[in-house]
This record gives sequence, structure tokens and C-alpha cells, in this order.
Amino acid sequence: MVEDEIGVLSRIAGLFARRGFNIDSLAVGPTEISGISRIIMVIPGDQRTIEQITKQLYKLINVLKVNDVTVTPSVERELMLLKIDASNGKRTAIIEVINVFRAKIVDLAENFLMVEVTGDPGKIAAFEKIIRNFGIIEIARTGKISLTRSSKINSEFLKNVAEEF
Amino acid sequence: MVEDEIGVLSRIAGLFARRGFNIDSLAVGPTEISGISRIIMVIPGDQRTIEQITKQLYKLINVLKVNDVTVTPSVERELMLLKIDASNGKRTAIIEVINVFRAKIVDLAENFLMVEVTGDPGKIAAFEKIIRNFGIIEIARTGKISLTRSSKINSEFLKNVAEEF
Repeated sequence: MVEDEIGVLSRIAGLFARRGFNIDSLAVGPTEISGISRIIMVIPGDQRTIEQITKQLYKLINVLKVNDVTVTPSVERELMLLKIDASNGKRTAIIEVINVFRAKIVDLAENFLMVEVTGDPGKIAAFEKIIRNFGIIEIARTGKISLTRSSKINSEFLKNVAEEF
Repeated sequence: MVEDEIGVLSRIAGLFARRGFNIDSLAVGPTEISGISRIIMVIPGDQRTIEQITKQLYKLINVLKVNDVTVTPSVERELMLLKIDASNGKRTAIIEVINVFRAKIVDLAENFLMVEVTGDPGKIAAFEKIIRNFGIIEIARTGKISLTRSSKINSEFLKNVAEEF
């Protein structure tokens, strides 16, 4: 959680660059509190690396709170837009895949389909892998976002519960 | 479009900080090409500001391509996770709103609901505004992502086409 001030992202990105830490994924967005943003980063590294980064982040101004949610039960979601090659009669086959993944067609041209897909990182990866066979023209992808679960309920069970509403 | 190198985000964020440019929204994610990431930023400013930023960005190493899509017909999407206060019998009323917005319940506890909602910035803002009346505990939100349309078709018309598949 950071204060919305010019330079806060620069200081955080600078810390990672200086220390040579990789950022696998990054999402920045407003929170429930005005003037406060939530930055969600996926950082490859062991427990010690994460502890080091956490300590360093707390030294930066405008950084209010750092949570490591690696092992906290969380809902993780990502969003992807894909422009797919739908030429040569491939459209029907592509739409079948889209339906299986409950993805959504958001733009349609003679030889292209644009699709929106939201899901946990596993679903996003699986969808991209299958669609890759048809030919991907362009991808735009958000970083991963997550919130910790209040339920402590098994995630697979919950997926089914959610469908029923 | 940038090369995935340690420090590229730091240089970009540093440029914005030094020039005092605000970043309203930021999303970083992989693209269709391995080793290349797409950074999508929403920058408040007039045409001249955007031209200046574009020029400056091209001077940074690992920056491959800069596109201003302000007036290009594009599909714009954002993803939000919300933890909502569902105590005191509010749950049914909340679920009604969720259904209207085609949002999805992803976690459920006695006094909480967690909801995933994907849409264009207008839908996201409208959903948040209505849900705010019930009490929002936590929000995680991705930056806005977008891809340019191939169709040139009116966006409202397309929403209806998409529903029919």
C-alpha cells in the first residue's frame, strides 16, 4: 500500500533495479481508500529474498504497508486481451475453445477475433497455450492481483459454489 | 513495448517522476513475443504532453515502441477484486447487483463476499459506486489494458454481438 505521490513507483522500481531483483508481474491500482494505491508484484525468490525486499521497501517514503501473501490463502486473478488470427475458416474452432474457458469475444473482424479472458494464473496460461495454435496477433495482459480469502474454504470447492449463484 | 531487462521499469518510472508527470493507471504484462513486455499507462495531459513523453520514452534503452492510442478505436478492459461487507442480511441485495453487472463471486464467508468484475472503465466505476453503499472492505485493481480494434465497428453494437455467441 503506497501513497499516491509522484515518484513512489520510481523509488520502488529503482530499489528492485539496484538490487537486481526481477519483477515477474506488476499491477498498480487504486484501493478502497482515496489517495492510497495498492501495488501487487510477483517476485521470484526464496523466503530470505522476500524478507530483504520487505525491509528495504519499508525504508522508502510513501510506502505504508508491505504484505507477503505467498502462503496466505488468496484469490488470484489476471486479465488478458488477445487478438487471434481467425482466417481460413478457423473461427468456429476458436469459438469452441472460447466457450469452454468462458472467455468473451469483444471484437470481431473478417480475419480476427479479440477475446477477453479473466482467471487464475493457471487458467490464463492454459488458454494462451491452446489459442497459440491458431495464431496470436497481439496480447495485452494485466499483472496478477490478489486479495486474501476470508473463507479459508478450499478453492476448488468455491469455484462450484460461485457458479450456482 | 519494452525488452524484459532489469531496470527498464525503473528508467520509465524515473522519467515520469523527474518530469512531474502523473500516472493514473499502469499495467505491465508479457506479450505475444517472448522477452518483450507491454506496458500500458494512462497519462492525464494534452496532446503536447503526450508528444513530449513519447519522445522522451524513445530515448530510454530497452524501449522498443511507443503508441498513443488516445483516439484509436480500442477495447479497454480492467479487472477488480472487491471484498464486500455482507453482514446484517445484506447478502441477497449484494448478489442482485452482482448479477446485473455479470460479476462473479469468488469467495464467501459469513459476513463477507469477494467479487471479481471485468469490464471497461465505465462499468468498473459504476459497479464500485453502487457496491460502496454496502461497505467495501478491500479493493485490488489492475491497471487498464487495451488493444486496438480491427473491426472499426461501433462498440455498443459489438457488445450485443458478443453476447450472442
